[in-house]
Amino acid sequence: MDKEIKGQLRAIVGDGWFLDTPNELYAYSYDATPLYQSMPDAVVMPSSVEEIAAILKVANEYRIPITSRGSGTNLSGGTVPVDGGIVLLTTRLNQLREIDQENLTATFGPGMITADLHKAVESMGLFYPPDPGSMRISTMGGNVAECAGGMRGLKYGVTKDYIMGLKAVLPTGEVIRVGGKNAKDVAGYDVTKLLVGSEGTLAVVTEITAKLLPLPPAKQTLVAYYNDLTDAARTVQRVITEKIIPATMEFLDQATMIVVEDFAKIGLPLDVQAMLIIEQDGTQLQVEQDIERIAEICRAEGAIDVRTAQTAEEGASLMAARRAALSALARVKPTTILEDATVPRARLAEMVEQVNRIAKKYSVHICTFGHAGDGNLHPTCLTDERDQEEIHRVEQAFEEIFHSAIALGGTITGEHGVGMAKAGFLELKVGASGIELMKRIKEAFDPHGIMNPGKIFAKSDRRRVVVKTNACGCQHEHNHA
Amino acid sequence: MDKEIKGQLRAIVGDGWFLDTPNELYAYSYDATPLYQSMPDAVVMPSSVEEIAAILKVANEYRIPITSRGSGTNLSGGTVPVDGGIVLLTTRLNQLREIDQENLTATFGPGMITADLHKAVESMGLFYPPDPGSMRISTMGGNVAECAGGMRGLKYGVTKDYIMGLKAVLPTGEVIRVGGKNAKDVAGYDVTKLLVGSEGTLAVVTEITAKLLPLPPAKQTLVAYYNDLTDAARTVQRVITEKIIPATMEFLDQATMIVVEDFAKIGLPLDVQAMLIIEQDGTQLQVEQDIERIAEICRAEGAIDVRTAQTAEEGASLMAARRAALSALARVKPTTILEDATVPRARLAEMVEQVNRIAKKYSVHICTFGHAGDGNLHPTCLTDERDQEEIHRVEQAFEEIFHSAIALGGTITGEHGVGMAKAGFLELKVGASGIELMKRIKEAFDPHGIMNPGKIFAKSDRRRVVVKTNACGCQHEHNHA
Repeated sequence: MDKEIKGQLRAIVGDGWFLDTPNELYAYSYDATPLYQSMPDAVVMPSSVEEIAAILKVANEYRIPITSRGSGTNLSGGTVPVDGGIVLLTTRLNQLREIDQENLTATFGPGMITADLHKAVESMGLFYPPDPGSMRISTMGGNVAECAGGMRGLKYGVTKDYIMGLKAVLPTGEVIRVGGKNAKDVAGYDVTKLLVGSEGTLAVVTEITAKLLPLPPAKQTLVAYYNDLTDAARTVQRVITEKIIPATMEFLDQATMIVVEDFAKIGLPLDVQAMLIIEQDGTQLQVEQDIERIAEICRAEGAIDVRTAQTAEEGASLMAARRAALSALARVKPTTILEDATVPRARLAEMVEQVNRIAKKYSVHICTFGHAGDGNLHPTCLTDERDQEEIHRVEQAFEEIFHSAIALGGTITGEHGVGMAKAGFLELKVGASGIELMKRIKEAFDPHGIMNPGKIFAKSDRRRVVVKTNACGCQHEHNHA
Repeated sequence: MDKEIKGQLRAIVGDGWFLDTPNELYAYSYDATPLYQSMPDAVVMPSSVEEIAAILKVANEYRIPITSRGSGTNLSGGTVPVDGGIVLLTTRLNQLREIDQENLTATFGPGMITADLHKAVESMGLFYPPDPGSMRISTMGGNVAECAGGMRGLKYGVTKDYIMGLKAVLPTGEVIRVGGKNAKDVAGYDVTKLLVGSEGTLAVVTEITAKLLPLPPAKQTLVAYYNDLTDAARTVQRVITEKIIPATMEFLDQATMIVVEDFAKIGLPLDVQAMLIIEQDGTQLQVEQDIERIAEICRAEGAIDVRTAQTAEEGASLMAARRAALSALARVKPTTILEDATVPRARLAEMVEQVNRIAKKYSVHICTFGHAGDGNLHPTCLTDERDQEEIHRVEQAFEEIFHSAIALGGTITGEHGVGMAKAGFLELKVGASGIELMKRIKEAFDPHGIMNPGKIFAKSDRRRVVVKTNACGCQHEHNHA
């Protein structure tokens, strides 16, 4: 990027909000996805929609890639600036503009931290359900870009189900407003829902209006331990066919439980094959009725032990243990690759069996946990990126896991996005026609391809690409296709 | 359309499923929207996705407009073949393929009648909430095309919130599958939600997978009568700020009540200004608690009478009276124009006041009813299309109503779609940039513009266009801009 362009960008955001020293650039060369890294040419930290529009105009004029990001908790390489260019941070647009108690909406900037939104609305007795694992540091802009999920998806859905309106800047610098506070609105195509989950490839979101619910007055947590994975999966199924929809039904296999216990010391039994953590919310009476019935179902389906949290604190500590799974797993080996294969929930047991079979076949260490009620599993591989031979087997194993998920009617990613990590597999899910259609949709927004290039769509038939860049900015690629 | 093309279409669907006599064409020249009519050149009734793909290939090759439709209950002129060409009926694809009790989904053809889907899933204790006014005759394909709403939108959302997967044919004849049965799926852009509400302008939907919920075990209905419209609106607001979300909160003004009573004879008082019909569903106990608290709120906010239905039958008859509103209104005058202005629910009282002011200003007879909990009003004008001077005033009044809705943060259409009737007003809601963006999205699907041309996007700056065609196919237009 030449000096003249850098000067234009610096003039837009002001000194102090434009970064281009090697150390500064390095900090924005990666996200939470292992194995992906690439240096940007410049980092800008705008404070307003006007500054963002001006930045995009410059980028569009000079055909400079723009990767917008918040906290960089992305797990599919979605915020790695793989073609260099500009990293645009939205973290300064973190204002909570309004909580509208009459229309049950909140309006805020994309830089707002997810957990801060939770706190703000819950203090008014309101509820924003999506709770991705990274919610304490993730931004809502990132949640919107990836259509973040979480542990409450079964009953409450995902980010898409709560985004009612957006303000966004197109690559031309034009500002569009889509949706709004209306409970019903069919004025033209639903650009709002199209932008949710578009991974920064279409526009930069600058303001978000989300739907809120009343905060359920009570909740209760139950854990059930199993000697057989399929008993746990059958329990999940049976609860739903009995027409109980719990807020959360989480699954941990033995390998994950061992690691979590070592990390969190909460007294998990380590000689069982799997556990379920089930939480229900609602009115006190309804919650009690549901949890009692769920406990009966767990026992009937073969749970060897079922415990109901006696206090809210005990429930919270069980949920915290589940939330700690990734951190706990990440301590074990230098590299932790968290995957996201998802199947219709009735196929859960089959998918867990496939993951175990595949781990054995490729001699890789995979722990599996995830959102059982959604069929959204996170098979997590503990490995070491310095061991290229093992990484190769890991990639083969994940490729087979994606094929298995698709064969079971599932998808290659439930909540982490396609990014770079899954781009080579998208065709498995949407077909060649689907990809061509999506590329044309992208062109409708971004004819010059400046918005987060290299994401969602594979550049070639390469599969997983490991991009490594040293601090001085020269790239070398390892192609593991 | 020349004989050769007609021959190709006839060969695809078979004799008996291709219509082109003037009488047959006349039957498909209009939908439920008053003032719009235009003759197609041919009507085809395919029985499979393969036939639909073949028809689209012919249409794409010869650049022939395709208007797909089901029962034609559209209220925005969306299924009127304004540029002639082919009307494609999806009514033969009406098979219920599966109700999946484990994954809580139903899969069916676009020709399935909405109420038949309700019956089928409810017989299994499951629930498909969207219930548009025309549900006894509307097809699910039409519901998807328009993103149909209904009376349960407040608590349960609209069609979009329930469509998980679609099979669709692009204008090229390519068949795409988008979404599926996965509770979480972020593999690429959300083409599923983009197709919902796209009014047949992007693709022809040939199979639908919808999300189901457990059927709530109990429901109860309450009516409240008011001497002041704003008391009714304040009641709606207060119920929600007290964090009760009823399944339904319907509003009828005095003018509508008089007409409904004359039609349905259910003993409505005719000396009050407005009524609310509120229904809650859930567990028996929760429903009783909520209805009791709602009754207290109604009284506290000035209701002069509050009655709780003593039996399910009484509740059903009240809801039926509300459902009869349009039929009742349609008996009064030769032409009934049902509009669809929507505002954030907190602005409901202001919007009702605006409608009344505007009706007086233009000396037109407007009755207002609608989904108060959604802010989705249906100001309905009783008029006579033969009186061109009055129709002109009606159009001016509606234009002012749309401007008022927008000024209150609302939208030009909550659940009826843009079609032809609102195309001239779309810019009010989405701006010139929004329209240009939507046109580019359309081109990504339909580069030759054969899919339901003349809908969503105004052909010029004309406003409401009255298109009349005689049975021999020659058109003359009346431009009321």
